[in-house]
This record gives sequence, structure tokens and C-alpha cells, in this order.
Amino acid sequence: MTEQFTPTEKTKLRRIPKRGVYEREKIYQILDEGFICHVGFTDGGKTFVIPTGYARLEDKLLIHGSSASRMMREMAQKIEVCVTVTLLDGLVLARSAFHHSMNYRSVIIFGTAHLITDAKEKYDALKAFTEHIIPNRWTDIRPPNDLELKATTVLSLPIEEASAKIRNGDPVDDEADYSLSVWAGVVPLKMERGQSIRDARLNSDIEMPDYL
Amino acid sequence: MTEQFTPTEKTKLRRIPKRGVYEREKIYQILDEGFICHVGFTDGGKTFVIPTGYARLEDKLLIHGSSASRMMREMAQKIEVCVTVTLLDGLVLARSAFHHSMNYRSVIIFGTAHLITDAKEKYDALKAFTEHIIPNRWTDIRPPNDLELKATTVLSLPIEEASAKIRNGDPVDDEADYSLSVWAGVVPLKMERGQSIRDARLNSDIEMPDYL
Repeated sequence: MTEQFTPTEKTKLRRIPKRGVYEREKIYQILDEGFICHVGFTDGGKTFVIPTGYARLEDKLLIHGSSASRMMREMAQKIEVCVTVTLLDGLVLARSAFHHSMNYRSVIIFGTAHLITDAKEKYDALKAFTEHIIPNRWTDIRPPNDLELKATTVLSLPIEEASAKIRNGDPVDDEADYSLSVWAGVVPLKMERGQSIRDARLNSDIEMPDYL
Repeated sequence: MTEQFTPTEKTKLRRIPKRGVYEREKIYQILDEGFICHVGFTDGGKTFVIPTGYARLEDKLLIHGSSASRMMREMAQKIEVCVTVTLLDGLVLARSAFHHSMNYRSVIIFGTAHLITDAKEKYDALKAFTEHIIPNRWTDIRPPNDLELKATTVLSLPIEEASAKIRNGDPVDDEADYSLSVWAGVVPLKMERGQSIRDARLNSDIEMPDYL
């Protein structure tokens, strides 16, 4: 396993190269923090971009869904896909309209996914999805039964051709604009968890687990 | 202008139709709340999914970028694109692994973008981008000059073939699982703004504006 991805024709950042990141560790940190990926694929000449949950397991990105979904059906045909995960970190307010920007971390992965057919491998994948959402949840819940395993399609995308793009810090204004009397800086944005909401049908004697 | 989009072969939700939303107003609410869209297009047989900022202006989705970027160059060729905006609202914790889910609101738009060449139209688009990020900011800042207008490519995508997909509320468990002694419910997620961070080079006598 390489610690550093080799930029390819598709993953190399050409326009603002300093924002490009090719270290596996940093790319995995972004993937592990996000919840939603956007899967792009072409079907009958049309491009589709579908948001979906995912999990990373070692050097694979796992995506699951109903066997009936168009995306899963298409991806199972071993077509090339592009999967993007984006975390928004802040609004960058410059002194000029032109230099307004956003702070973000994004990862883009190109590759061909394959169906996971082995029962044990599928089970481990479903565990990874649950643990990605809420660590330590798996031991609490009813695990998937054979019928559920059959109804779920899991695809595995090797993380081989990938890169990240990161922008952070202050706005970068034109030198002449720094003397303008305009407030400039960053409005940080963060995905925050609110107070957990009990299911309406939850027995009143069931307490909230520690991992929440 | 129709108040309701007609589902097409591409936008019609087939698998879980009750999650499909075709009302223009609800679709626009989602677009106006988000900051990042994911633009999908095909270039030389390869699918790309690129995250970028956007703004909605009436019945158009506006995307801007450097004239040098691959995405802008490609999109300017009047190719078909798919643009997706996703807002994550919560983690849905069911009693079984199988029924774990997420609450979200997403919009998908299919269409062909065109270049905005008219100077006034471009100016208005840049204003829309800034105002989408921070309402009331535009009057404070230095507006774009001719050089900046020329260096910026703005694309306009008509919002004609679009749909939203929404999941909200409690988990839906198998009837038999409701008797399990497992905490179930929703962990709400929300993009929250933190305390604004002043630019390191900001004059100390410039106060934070009211709109922050």
C-alpha cells in the first residue's frame, strides 16, 4: 500500500495545485468524517449524480443500497464511477466580491466498483456502515438476517485513484483592497449534532446509550 | 412557470416514490439553504463529480468558476449535466442494522448549461453568489471590475427537469423488532455557524457587520 497517491490525468489539480492533497492518511480522514458521498456514473449517455451513505473499510469505499435501485444496478455492471465526498468548513468573506470563497475539504475517487457476494464480507460491510454512522452501535442492534443480506446490494470501490482538495484560512484579497474599510474573515461552519430524539414507539424504560 | 415539475424518466423516483417531491417551491427551499452542489458531467467517456458553490436566481441555477477550470470549460460546450444538492438532517437509528438510515433533503437537476456573456447579467450573477453566501453583504464590498468579470465564467442552468427526495422522521422497523430492548430514534444534524474569525490583516477598528 502506498502512503501517497500518484496524481493521474484525472486526479491531478492543475488550476490551484497547492490545494491538492495526495496523502492516503489525509484522504481517509476526510472520508471517515463525512456521511454522504455523491456517486457519478453514466447510464445510456446520461450522467447521474446520486447522494448516498457509505463507509470506508481499509482501502475500499463501500456503498450499499437496495438491489432495485438504478445506481446499484448500474454500478454492479462494473462501470466506471466517480465518487466525491465534500465537507464544508466555512464561508470566506473577502473585501472584494471576486475573492469570496469557501473553506472545504473534498475527496474524489475514480474507479470501478464490484459487487460483494461473499456472505461474510457483506456482513462485515453492513457492520462498517452502522459503525461509520454511530461507533459502538453494532453490538446493541439486531444484526441482519439472511433475507436482509440478500435484499442488500453492497459495492466495493478500491481507493486507488484518489485525491483531496483543501482550502482553509483567511481570504486572499488583492493587495490594494486590504486598506478598504470592509470586514473580512471566515464564518466557520460545522455539522453539529442536536439532542437525540426518541422514536415515538420507544419503550419508556429504554435509556439512551452512552455512545449517544 | 409551472408550480409542479413533471416527473421524467430521469427524475421520477421509482423505488420509494413517497420520498419524491416535485413542487418548485420545496425544491427551491432546498437549493436556497445549501451552499455546495455536486456537478456531474462526462468528458472523454469519463464521469466527473465536482463540488462547487452556486446560487439560484429565479428559475436558474448559477455556477461560476475560473475560465481555466476543466468543469467550466466542459460545461461551456453545452454538454448535459446533472447537478445535485444534498442537505443532511439526521442519523436514523433503527432497532435492526438493516433499517438504519439518514434523514436528508436532496435535489437533482438535469439540463444543459449556457455561458452568460452579457456583462450586466454576469454582474447580477456574481451579486447572487455573494448574497447567497451572506445576505446583505453585497453593499459592503468592492464590486467586481471589468478584469474580474472577464476572468470569471458564469454558467446558467435552467431549472426545468428537477426533483427532490426527502426522508424525515423516525426509523421504520420491522413490526417484530419494536419489542426489542434497543434505543431507537434520530440524531439530528445541522450545519451550524461558529463565531466569526477576523482576517489576520483586518484593521482593528473595523467592527463586525450586523448581518454576521
